[in-house]
Amino acid sequence: MNNFIYHIPTKVIFGKEEHKNVGAIIKSYGFHKVMLHYGGGSIKKTGLYEDVILSLNESGIEYFELSGVQPNPTLSLVHTGVKLCKENKPDLILAVGGGSVIDSAKSIASGALCDFDPWLFQSGEKIITAAIPVATILTISAAGSETSCSCVITNDETGIKRGHSSPFNRPLFSILNPELTYTVSEYQTACGIVDIMMHTLERYITLKNEVSPTDEISEAILKSVIKAGKEAIEHPNSYEARAALMWAGSLSHNDLTGLGKDYFMVSHQIEHEISGKFNHVAHGAGLAVVFPAWAKYAYRYNIPRFVRYAVNVWGILENKSDPEKTALEGILKTESFFASIGMPIRLHELNITEDSFEEMAIKCTNFGGRVLKGYIDYGKVEICDILKLAL
Amino acid sequence: MNNFIYHIPTKVIFGKEEHKNVGAIIKSYGFHKVMLHYGGGSIKKTGLYEDVILSLNESGIEYFELSGVQPNPTLSLVHTGVKLCKENKPDLILAVGGGSVIDSAKSIASGALCDFDPWLFQSGEKIITAAIPVATILTISAAGSETSCSCVITNDETGIKRGHSSPFNRPLFSILNPELTYTVSEYQTACGIVDIMMHTLERYITLKNEVSPTDEISEAILKSVIKAGKEAIEHPNSYEARAALMWAGSLSHNDLTGLGKDYFMVSHQIEHEISGKFNHVAHGAGLAVVFPAWAKYAYRYNIPRFVRYAVNVWGILENKSDPEKTALEGILKTESFFASIGMPIRLHELNITEDSFEEMAIKCTNFGGRVLKGYIDYGKVEICDILKLAL
Repeated sequence: MNNFIYHIPTKVIFGKEEHKNVGAIIKSYGFHKVMLHYGGGSIKKTGLYEDVILSLNESGIEYFELSGVQPNPTLSLVHTGVKLCKENKPDLILAVGGGSVIDSAKSIASGALCDFDPWLFQSGEKIITAAIPVATILTISAAGSETSCSCVITNDETGIKRGHSSPFNRPLFSILNPELTYTVSEYQTACGIVDIMMHTLERYITLKNEVSPTDEISEAILKSVIKAGKEAIEHPNSYEARAALMWAGSLSHNDLTGLGKDYFMVSHQIEHEISGKFNHVAHGAGLAVVFPAWAKYAYRYNIPRFVRYAVNVWGILENKSDPEKTALEGILKTESFFASIGMPIRLHELNITEDSFEEMAIKCTNFGGRVLKGYIDYGKVEICDILKLAL
Repeated sequence: MNNFIYHIPTKVIFGKEEHKNVGAIIKSYGFHKVMLHYGGGSIKKTGLYEDVILSLNESGIEYFELSGVQPNPTLSLVHTGVKLCKENKPDLILAVGGGSVIDSAKSIASGALCDFDPWLFQSGEKIITAAIPVATILTISAAGSETSCSCVITNDETGIKRGHSSPFNRPLFSILNPELTYTVSEYQTACGIVDIMMHTLERYITLKNEVSPTDEISEAILKSVIKAGKEAIEHPNSYEARAALMWAGSLSHNDLTGLGKDYFMVSHQIEHEISGKFNHVAHGAGLAVVFPAWAKYAYRYNIPRFVRYAVNVWGILENKSDPEKTALEGILKTESFFASIGMPIRLHELNITEDSFEEMAIKCTNFGGRVLKGYIDYGKVEICDILKLAL
């Protein structure tokens, strides 16, 4: 087990109706003024917007708004938010939405307290040293941004999408009410299920075979998500299923499932190029395509780990004389599960063809400036090979 | 799933050599003066004391000491610590030891900032509203106090042992170096293994049968502890086994394994009477005796849950025509595991006889002022019946 630091100061307030207390919670921190940050009209349609405003008003919290966050949140909206925050100086940014809204809020929060373009945090050229506190009311179980230290932004001028991590990105508190996800469409629910699984899977399928209890916890979360995922697709209003997905989503991306391990997030890095270039691709859908291709490419470098995954997560009987067969069965089972919840599992389903591969692979290596680390080093050639397996 | 709040602000610094950075870590918080709190001579024998003092000196941290914490930490030493802290006003109490030292530090930390006896926190008559920050360097994997909000103290005048919970009890940071547990004796290691398992088990075997992913995570941790426990008893210097026990110990008692559930800790409450009355009984050893007795008494009220435990944790094949048999097999497997690592599983092994039962049962009900809540209400009669099953 590697040495690690585990520090999640985010206060999670989980359960029915909890979002209606947001004003009082903000007040308990001594805050008076917030920037309310959200996406399109959906929170107005569901009544969530009204609940939040009512609660803020009841607690005498002053607020101003910035809406319009899109999936794959853009740097240009971050710039708008930074300007607004510099002018209006909120005590807190309250993100009401999913991962995109939360990430946009995080980027604005650090950008508002520096005197350069916050893209430099995304590109790794600068380190965050201060940020306005961010709080969240989560509406989609997926990204895990509500307790994570990561933040993914797309530079809409260049089409480059980059994630970075900082303790300053960790929200102060997050309100998780599973009922708010009843209205998430079947497709978006499925995208979230894939994203949650991948946050755990990419930490689980790594070089070191045995880090206990981290590995057992990852298997536990994967099994929970697979079971709750099926249930939530079938019965969108199942509280228990929505609750399991929501909590598993946070745990999958708040470091717990990678503690003591080296992990690389190769599928995530490759997928960022796909949804960065093709706006119609949801991150989860992109992952459902990339992971099976990556796994078919890479399993041979660590067959015992893929065997353990197949046996412990999918309940596949181990073929002791042909472990490769068991490993592949686990990958195919994952692929067919993604398909069964309505996800694409090949690029052609997303209308993406081979002519875009080289450009994406080059961008993914930062124009030759990095290789992706994993069982092997992935440069342009390897990334193209994986994309071809995804055709 | 019940609504819950999950908030663990304790920073966990985990791994080899990390305790040697304690001075710099304390300095990074802007602290200058600490009270060093520990037990007997063991930290001097192992060289840990010297490492800590060296690190404090290197960082220019002023310190004074209070040693002498015993297993089942006493109120009288807490009183001494409170007096010392009121006189010397440390910025931080640094607990170097196991659960007893940490709990003693927690009680001193809250006692030092109030003007009444901190026993009133233990007895539930007062609520903590302030405490000196506590940090820990953990030397035994067991109690989980290093990230928990709980604190158990024995009133050495009355022999009454009481635990209470408060967010103010959560340490600021905890340094967890598994190497520091290599020298823990086989018996104390086994006591720790039982304590860790019981912290998870008492949250797992509850009224609600299915709370996902909490239940799967509990099963994961239990499996990890059983495996690592066997290994650590056999190979005391196995880093991976010691590391698994240490991290599982923290996770088992920092709320994660009970989220969304009602749980009661009935075995813990009954055991507190045993080790509270009989000083020679280690808490883990007492639990190893009480749990099997409690389980044999209580399983009939929730057979499906005990079946799930038997199947998912112990890998017992489910007997579908006779679930009771499967449930009992799981209990017996637990009991024989405790015995296999050298734990007592009956009270007579601890030289405790029936004539003490009524007194312990009466104390456990706060002299008739409470019943223990669980599958049923446990009053004096039921507690005596369970103790009889443990004879």
